[in-house]
Amino acid sequence: MRETISNQPSSQVEKQKNKTESLDFILEKSKELGPEMIENYREIHENPELGGEEFETARKVKDYLQNLSIEIVGEGIGGSGIIARIKGKEGGPTIALRADMDALPVQEAESNSPRSQKDGVMHACGHDSHTAALMGAAKMLKELADKGELNGSSILLFQPSEEKAHQKESGAVQMIKFLEKSGLRKNIDAFLGLHVFNSLERGQVQLKEGVQLASSGEVDVILKGPGGHIINAYDTPSLHHIFSKLTLRLEEMFKPMEKKEEALVASARTKYAGTGYNILPAEAESTWVVRVTSPHFKEISKSIEADIKRIANEVVAEHLKEIKEETGRTDIGNVDILIKKRPGYRPVVHRSPELVGIADKSAEQVIDNYQKNEKLLMGGEDFSFYLENFQGKEIPGVFAMIGSANPEKGYPKTAHHTPDFKIDPDAIKDLAALYSNFTVNAIEYFKEKRDN
Amino acid sequence: MRETISNQPSSQVEKQKNKTESLDFILEKSKELGPEMIENYREIHENPELGGEEFETARKVKDYLQNLSIEIVGEGIGGSGIIARIKGKEGGPTIALRADMDALPVQEAESNSPRSQKDGVMHACGHDSHTAALMGAAKMLKELADKGELNGSSILLFQPSEEKAHQKESGAVQMIKFLEKSGLRKNIDAFLGLHVFNSLERGQVQLKEGVQLASSGEVDVILKGPGGHIINAYDTPSLHHIFSKLTLRLEEMFKPMEKKEEALVASARTKYAGTGYNILPAEAESTWVVRVTSPHFKEISKSIEADIKRIANEVVAEHLKEIKEETGRTDIGNVDILIKKRPGYRPVVHRSPELVGIADKSAEQVIDNYQKNEKLLMGGEDFSFYLENFQGKEIPGVFAMIGSANPEKGYPKTAHHTPDFKIDPDAIKDLAALYSNFTVNAIEYFKEKRDN
Repeated sequence: MRETISNQPSSQVEKQKNKTESLDFILEKSKELGPEMIENYREIHENPELGGEEFETARKVKDYLQNLSIEIVGEGIGGSGIIARIKGKEGGPTIALRADMDALPVQEAESNSPRSQKDGVMHACGHDSHTAALMGAAKMLKELADKGELNGSSILLFQPSEEKAHQKESGAVQMIKFLEKSGLRKNIDAFLGLHVFNSLERGQVQLKEGVQLASSGEVDVILKGPGGHIINAYDTPSLHHIFSKLTLRLEEMFKPMEKKEEALVASARTKYAGTGYNILPAEAESTWVVRVTSPHFKEISKSIEADIKRIANEVVAEHLKEIKEETGRTDIGNVDILIKKRPGYRPVVHRSPELVGIADKSAEQVIDNYQKNEKLLMGGEDFSFYLENFQGKEIPGVFAMIGSANPEKGYPKTAHHTPDFKIDPDAIKDLAALYSNFTVNAIEYFKEKRDN
Repeated sequence: MRETISNQPSSQVEKQKNKTESLDFILEKSKELGPEMIENYREIHENPELGGEEFETARKVKDYLQNLSIEIVGEGIGGSGIIARIKGKEGGPTIALRADMDALPVQEAESNSPRSQKDGVMHACGHDSHTAALMGAAKMLKELADKGELNGSSILLFQPSEEKAHQKESGAVQMIKFLEKSGLRKNIDAFLGLHVFNSLERGQVQLKEGVQLASSGEVDVILKGPGGHIINAYDTPSLHHIFSKLTLRLEEMFKPMEKKEEALVASARTKYAGTGYNILPAEAESTWVVRVTSPHFKEISKSIEADIKRIANEVVAEHLKEIKEETGRTDIGNVDILIKKRPGYRPVVHRSPELVGIADKSAEQVIDNYQKNEKLLMGGEDFSFYLENFQGKEIPGVFAMIGSANPEKGYPKTAHHTPDFKIDPDAIKDLAALYSNFTVNAIEYFKEKRDN
């Protein structure tokens, strides 16, 4: 590229030179920091903490940042969230980088290494790697800033409670409120969120314009029946029967929407009250996740909720009618239907094609065998809130899913949220480099935009 | 009846007079003891204990019997079982009376009174009333014996662990072993077991010759799949889908057998591992109770078990095939099927029509508005073991279900094993009177049989 640079005006040449130097620094530094980041990842992985309780993780992050003389501007946010700031050139653009810190109520497979040392809690979604990567990126960006090579500022968001999946409990919402209240938010030009993604191999990155991730939300179907002894299983309203039928009916109705990538409506389980195998439960519940890939997610979600309610009513009515006909009795007891809607996360919408382009280019520069994947994903993410209008201001941003499987190295495509989940730890380097490189490139983009 | 008696030979007259006096005594005494029995019932109801842990209940029973100078011949049997003996006329027949003492893991409804004072444990099947009734019967029979009016002996069986529902854990089996080892069993002429039954109103008694209660036993269907994130619900083997389909298919297959009173094959619930609504479970299990009303229950149970296994295999295969076709993928993961059979209780078989006749007559004499109901019941009962061949000896007996609902008095037909279950406490008097009256009548029957 040097040849072409020589023909450009000197300020342009200087800029390009800076950028090339920054990129070289990031590439070199992210390799050098690899072992340290993997060690931090291992420690966090072994000591997973559920959403809102990431106290030890936050303490570790804070100690690390303070050792680097990075300014902590907020802590204990939403329980344990930490916000820090790296100041580069005065008056330059500000890019906010987000990593989530929470683990899940999953019992880790014994064969995993590193492995959770806490029974029933596991980093089964990779947030440990996000935290470790953002710690590494912080070190790089601080060094760039100290060298006078960062033309703006970086806000580091170590966020709690991403997995809660409801707006009320969302760690992102707490972080945004703090940013707004503290006056930090008004200066932020863009947000970047990264997530490891085990459905893709290292090198592949899921990233697209428009809707990147679906909205989330749930509908709880709660039924209360008379219950009873198992000997009356065929003479009494049976919640096991009703939920079996309801599950199949709803799946039949909603599977085509999933195949067309319009929405995911699915349920992982039905929970029955009590435990006795010979006691017909008097209450049971199944949660249907509703994820919509359209900006009109609110209307579509409403219509899906209405369908669930209607089918539940139909299945219950059919069952009661059948028992009454078969037994000739009318006093068989009733089944009450309760439908609860829980608002979830908005879809992650990339409103700025330019920022998606910068993320694409930044990833290409730092990730080996880079390949962009534009498949739409049904995973909900509270990162969406960072990109939504709040107090009259909407800030653009990007959320990218970074391939973390590496079957050849012994890291097959194990599924997120399962006991076997494990990522190639070297993927952490990819995230750290991308956090840093996107920051540098986005700062230049916004600087240029302001200058023109 | 006095008119006809005068024409009988004097020994016959004496016998009839004794019997009439005993009956009058039992009728009067069971009324008099009503409040005391209800108080004992209330105390046991408020302090329910699960099978094998009936220590406080047993202590209460033991204190009560010792206060009456009734001989305790065994205690701590199967954990907490108590066996006592009331000796009447030397060399007379011996009738063993059984009451079970265990409660269930059910959370009692707040509106019930008396109400369990233990969270999650409840006398939801009425064993508290059996224990209280047998305590009352013991008092009556001891008084009859002390007056020289009991022509034989009574063995009182306060049995633990009826609800375990498996031969290995059955309290009855422990009691029988003790009876055999202690030499008590060889002198027992008959067993009587009573159970309150809330599907019938007071006065009605379920009692029939031949098979009175079905065999019991279970088949556990355990499936292990790959699990995963809910976003893959339609691309991954889903245990929620498989169990929903399996439940409906098995119900369709086995419901006709229940309607024909041949067998009950039913499942109250499916249990899914984990709790996350957005995590596809990697393991799930449903227990199918198998209750057969034929003396050939072993062969029939085997054939039912084979059917369950076959259908489970079919449903899993269909599901895997469908996903492979829809996704065009072959690496969707597998579903392992594990079928576990658990031997339960044998059917309760009334091999002696004469004893059923004596129970019928005895009930008619002491229960107001008595009406015999001969419907076959699917409830399993470890009382069955008392009536089976053990060490080369088979002892006959009767098990009767005593109506305990009384809607007019505020005791509707609430189902056994549910939080709302409650009986009319006055039913305890019916049980106590029947325990006592059957003992008197059966002793006379066996005495006569020996004399002739």
